[in-house]
Amino acid sequence: MNRLAIGVDLGGTNLRIAAVDEQGKLVEKITLDTQVSLGRDHVIGEMCNAIQRMSDKYKNSAPLVGIGVGVPGIIDRQTGLVRESPNLPDWVDYPAQAAIEQRLKTVVILENDANVAALGEKWLGAAKDCDDMAMLTLGTGVGGGLVVGGKIWGGANGMAGEFGHTTVEPDGHICGCGNHGCLEQYASATAMVRMAREAVSRDGTSALARALHSDPGFSAKSLYNLAAQGDEDARRIFRYVGRCLGIVLSALVNSLNLPIYVIGGGASSAWDAFSPAMFEELRRRSLVFDATTVQDPNAIHEGAAAHVKPGSGHRTVITHAQLGSDAGLYGAARLPMIAGS
Amino acid sequence: MNRLAIGVDLGGTNLRIAAVDEQGKLVEKITLDTQVSLGRDHVIGEMCNAIQRMSDKYKNSAPLVGIGVGVPGIIDRQTGLVRESPNLPDWVDYPAQAAIEQRLKTVVILENDANVAALGEKWLGAAKDCDDMAMLTLGTGVGGGLVVGGKIWGGANGMAGEFGHTTVEPDGHICGCGNHGCLEQYASATAMVRMAREAVSRDGTSALARALHSDPGFSAKSLYNLAAQGDEDARRIFRYVGRCLGIVLSALVNSLNLPIYVIGGGASSAWDAFSPAMFEELRRRSLVFDATTVQDPNAIHEGAAAHVKPGSGHRTVITHAQLGSDAGLYGAARLPMIAGS
Repeated sequence: MNRLAIGVDLGGTNLRIAAVDEQGKLVEKITLDTQVSLGRDHVIGEMCNAIQRMSDKYKNSAPLVGIGVGVPGIIDRQTGLVRESPNLPDWVDYPAQAAIEQRLKTVVILENDANVAALGEKWLGAAKDCDDMAMLTLGTGVGGGLVVGGKIWGGANGMAGEFGHTTVEPDGHICGCGNHGCLEQYASATAMVRMAREAVSRDGTSALARALHSDPGFSAKSLYNLAAQGDEDARRIFRYVGRCLGIVLSALVNSLNLPIYVIGGGASSAWDAFSPAMFEELRRRSLVFDATTVQDPNAIHEGAAAHVKPGSGHRTVITHAQLGSDAGLYGAARLPMIAGS
Repeated sequence: MNRLAIGVDLGGTNLRIAAVDEQGKLVEKITLDTQVSLGRDHVIGEMCNAIQRMSDKYKNSAPLVGIGVGVPGIIDRQTGLVRESPNLPDWVDYPAQAAIEQRLKTVVILENDANVAALGEKWLGAAKDCDDMAMLTLGTGVGGGLVVGGKIWGGANGMAGEFGHTTVEPDGHICGCGNHGCLEQYASATAMVRMAREAVSRDGTSALARALHSDPGFSAKSLYNLAAQGDEDARRIFRYVGRCLGIVLSALVNSLNLPIYVIGGGASSAWDAFSPAMFEELRRRSLVFDATTVQDPNAIHEGAAAHVKPGSGHRTVITHAQLGSDAGLYGAARLPMIAGS
């Protein structure tokens, strides 16, 4: 049997643990509730017990490469501390890596959840075969991950890839990070719902207003459904989402000139609604993204791409993620496989 | 004798050529006029003749490592074509590398001038001993260079590092690249003079208006002198320059988490005037740049730096370049020394 690694995707709602082999085959996957309200020690305990059970199960048939854990929050790689985590409030400045290693009595690799999602898409998804890539994840917040030379680019502190905290509106909406006008305030699922409420406060008689008032669980998905039905208020919001994404992606294109940028996360399923405006901004603002060869936004959606200026023969691809919510699980399992290489 | 490399800094006004040894010692430097009006063939001819003379002079005493040329413009690394060059208008889509190699009958390495300046500062200047760094050059435009693992990060097409074309004002001033609101439109020497004219058009009776009208050669330097004398209109412009620089630097800090960012170019000599507002934005917008340890802007100027959140012990340094206009010359000479490594 191939060697296995265990990948953990620790979310605010679910805790998912998988055994993945070195060819990327998912051998087993389990999902537990993340009982955040019971405190971090409880969550860590449940997680370590499940990892231990899975590890024991395969120990006689397949050597264990290692354990990787994706955590929603800013991780300081040197210290293994969780710096910030909106979904795990009592984890702030918590030495999570040490706590896990102490229980499991083995080394684990901790990474930001968006970084591991990027690594997953690089390994088995939309950016397969690309050693250099960036990913944005549109969820409760906007996460980001950067892969350089096939490995996560953590930067000096392991805190790189926070594309969601790029300023798009210098005097815009305040962000949880303390800044104003971060991308996260215009392209996360949370922001989409907030912008819907703002639109309704300006016009309380619209179809959007009726939908919001009648549905206590109104979500980014509800907003997308309205846009898909042609609601102009909803469509305007997604155009703005796309514009903001396009502004930040253009800055990345001009700064990093990567061959591929992948957009994932739950709210990226609204791709049809936001991507036309996103590509419009990319054509306008990117030096290495030539409008002349972009004919069909659907073609771009499918992974076909814009070419740079005629003659160079290179492409800059902006595309949808392929692994869905499993990207982080695969990426976490991949961490120990490429550690030290 | 140590091995030598020849570095060339091809500017719109001057053509400078230097022989530099592997320890970074400048052995010889010559400066010629760049007679752009006589056409690219003339410029290339003059340059190649001077390189040949310098190469012949040392050929019996020191082995030649190679030749590196910094060119103001966007270079396609794969093809050796100059894509865009505001200072060398007839060089657009010109196969400059092939033209130089044909005359010299040897391989040369062509690079964007801001990229080689970054490499120079990394080798011998403000970012010495840092393998990962970024540089912004404030000149006629705003150039940028990114060094990763000790080498210039060119990206897929060699066109990375164009930080000057990051959007800071989505609906702002139109840029030469076709976009609106690029950093270059707010932080270049050209932009500083334009913003002075805009301020004067709003208030034609100010000291700034008198200075502009009485001085046909009014420059960014003139504006800085006014700011240094306490002129509030001039100071307001530099505060805005600093704000825009801080917004873009914060995006780089959050995305790349590099240990050091260097600001050079002629207009960076207005550091005292723009850097307080720049650091204010950095404190506000950066995740890895903690305000609490920044006490004295002058200390930062000297290379001392802001620390990240207490406990991690790492620093993000934003500092002034050290090599002045020689950065590009040293960086160009460095190119062949690290090629292939």
